[in-house]
Amino acid sequence: MKASDRGKVDPFIVMDVMEAARAAEASGRHIIHMEVGQPSSPAPERARSALTRAMGDDALGYTVALGLPELREGIAKLYKDWYNLDLNPERVVVTPGSSGAFILAFTALFNAGDKVGLGEPGYPSYRQILKALNLTPVGLQTKPENRLQPVPSDIPDGLAGLITASPANPSGTMLDHAALQALIETCRAKDTSFIADEIYHGLQYEGRAVSALEVSDDIYVINSFSKYFSMTGWRVGWMVVPEDHIRIIERLAQNMFICPPHASQIAALAALDARDELDANLATYRTNRRLMLDELPKAGFDKIAPPDGAFYIYADISAYTNDSRAFAKKILDQAGVAVTPGMDFDPVRGHQTLRFSYARSTEDIREGLARLSRFMNDRQPQNISQKS
Amino acid sequence: MKASDRGKVDPFIVMDVMEAARAAEASGRHIIHMEVGQPSSPAPERARSALTRAMGDDALGYTVALGLPELREGIAKLYKDWYNLDLNPERVVVTPGSSGAFILAFTALFNAGDKVGLGEPGYPSYRQILKALNLTPVGLQTKPENRLQPVPSDIPDGLAGLITASPANPSGTMLDHAALQALIETCRAKDTSFIADEIYHGLQYEGRAVSALEVSDDIYVINSFSKYFSMTGWRVGWMVVPEDHIRIIERLAQNMFICPPHASQIAALAALDARDELDANLATYRTNRRLMLDELPKAGFDKIAPPDGAFYIYADISAYTNDSRAFAKKILDQAGVAVTPGMDFDPVRGHQTLRFSYARSTEDIREGLARLSRFMNDRQPQNISQKS
Repeated sequence: MKASDRGKVDPFIVMDVMEAARAAEASGRHIIHMEVGQPSSPAPERARSALTRAMGDDALGYTVALGLPELREGIAKLYKDWYNLDLNPERVVVTPGSSGAFILAFTALFNAGDKVGLGEPGYPSYRQILKALNLTPVGLQTKPENRLQPVPSDIPDGLAGLITASPANPSGTMLDHAALQALIETCRAKDTSFIADEIYHGLQYEGRAVSALEVSDDIYVINSFSKYFSMTGWRVGWMVVPEDHIRIIERLAQNMFICPPHASQIAALAALDARDELDANLATYRTNRRLMLDELPKAGFDKIAPPDGAFYIYADISAYTNDSRAFAKKILDQAGVAVTPGMDFDPVRGHQTLRFSYARSTEDIREGLARLSRFMNDRQPQNISQKS
Repeated sequence: MKASDRGKVDPFIVMDVMEAARAAEASGRHIIHMEVGQPSSPAPERARSALTRAMGDDALGYTVALGLPELREGIAKLYKDWYNLDLNPERVVVTPGSSGAFILAFTALFNAGDKVGLGEPGYPSYRQILKALNLTPVGLQTKPENRLQPVPSDIPDGLAGLITASPANPSGTMLDHAALQALIETCRAKDTSFIADEIYHGLQYEGRAVSALEVSDDIYVINSFSKYFSMTGWRVGWMVVPEDHIRIIERLAQNMFICPPHASQIAALAALDARDELDANLATYRTNRRLMLDELPKAGFDKIAPPDGAFYIYADISAYTNDSRAFAKKILDQAGVAVTPGMDFDPVRGHQTLRFSYARSTEDIREGLARLSRFMNDRQPQNISQKS
């Protein structure tokens, strides 16, 4: 059978790392996982017990396409709580993960052939989903002095849309109100639809994350229960759309997904009330981040983006290598730490970057940092001799 | 914000019926639901308790994109059990419902602008998902004498793909081995990719459903835990693809969905072993179907497709109306039975058809049939006088 051209998307390079890590573990080695993009914690206890109860008294059939009304209301209340915004719950669309939200947004907003901008480094799937939907991703190379975030002068004419992420993956940097406003105004002037990926909101350490909805209602905002709410595998996220897009999205969602997973919606609804447990997770990330910021530079990873949020540190390793993939493999083989080479995030500069995740336990992070430090100790002289 | 052209898909007409039924219930009326396309039974008890256990000892994070290996193996074994086929589990792709499978299949197989054929009457979302993915749906008007299934002479040249469904929705008719073989061979000769929707397999009453995989390996087969396994809201399905398409689908699935819902996969795995409970559901459908086949013709709904499988009866009501939507509304208003007008399934002839679902309890079906019979009794004379 013939395959389509658009269906031939790129593989993730990190998958090779994960497979190598798995093989190392299968052979008996102990590996510290700093490559993962997800919490090691389960969904909140409250979420899990709500689902156990619901499984006893509800058939859990299809829900309406836009999601359980009480969940949409609960999410709208979160905007009051987090940003002091009064959000019409009708504008909240529950989705099968933020992945489902991207498919709905791209389909609702863009026609085949349209160009859509995205900051580099950035989440690799933006590019691949766009390709699969016959859209043309336009990578915007961001600058370290702009915190690896796009600025208005980076936005070319002729884009049908722009996707931003704050806090960003892999960098962890955030866009403040002024930065968001400048980008949104530029997009409006250029007739470019603005999509804000806010899936790491709630995971912030220096000041609060600003929602793009604090700047404008005429945008799409995408969020998820995966990260702060610790529910990656449940595949439940949400999207806030302009009022005149609700019906468009509803029809697309009815046809493309029928509904988000009912069980996951039940769990998500209860997770909204599990803030104590989730803030305990956040405290762990805060401790981990402090350890990372103290120890990584001492080990030699000193060129890092300011990690305002999420649970990543993105490091420039151009002083050590031009081949981040080979470097990551060495770290795995020699130090027993799995890290992510940057090429998935930035096709241009990613051969000189690594992403470290600190989403695991503090004990793991301590051990990982000790291993990285020893690895770099051995490595420094080799590198200096290579340079000379 | 501008919306795209492709994002403007058609609404479901049945949604109006469902909303009217909900409003009637809210006003205190008792409504029998023959419009629904899902079991009223929950996921098997075994599936639910497996999930409760898993929530105690597993964080339920992301799974690999193609699904839990043990679930893929379990599904492969089902092909041995149901069809005596030895299926390589690597070819089994777990998906977020059959909806997710359609998105993956259409993206992997077809480029923007390609034409894809589908039998009419048929599942309305095929058409809308194709449109949203910039593909051109080509409706093939099927004939009653062909059991409302496409035959080789219905297939025009120039199709990139053909979607078939057996047992079909809304008709319930099945394709036997010879019919499938003729279609698959015709498609191969025309370079048309063949997609078989088998989501109603397991729900059959006259002979067994034949899988398209019994005819060819060079096709896509789509199935789901929604119907026979009684897990609609869980959004977990699967797809069997040719070996040389596994990697293509894996990359698409990684990017477009990350993974199917983990909790649903755990439940689905246990549901594979809950055949006793599921066969009890099937016995209910069998009883309901017998009642429908006995009583509907007596009431005047005597032009029906042979309902080999699924839980639907599709009736030609051209003797009574040219406006199935208004007729369905009358049935709801006067008889308190919600049924589905045919226009969602067949844009050409659906104004003269209705779909009756018998997925609910036998008690409901009995009561619904009694109401329909009284409604038609009152109606017959009116209609005759209108005709004269």
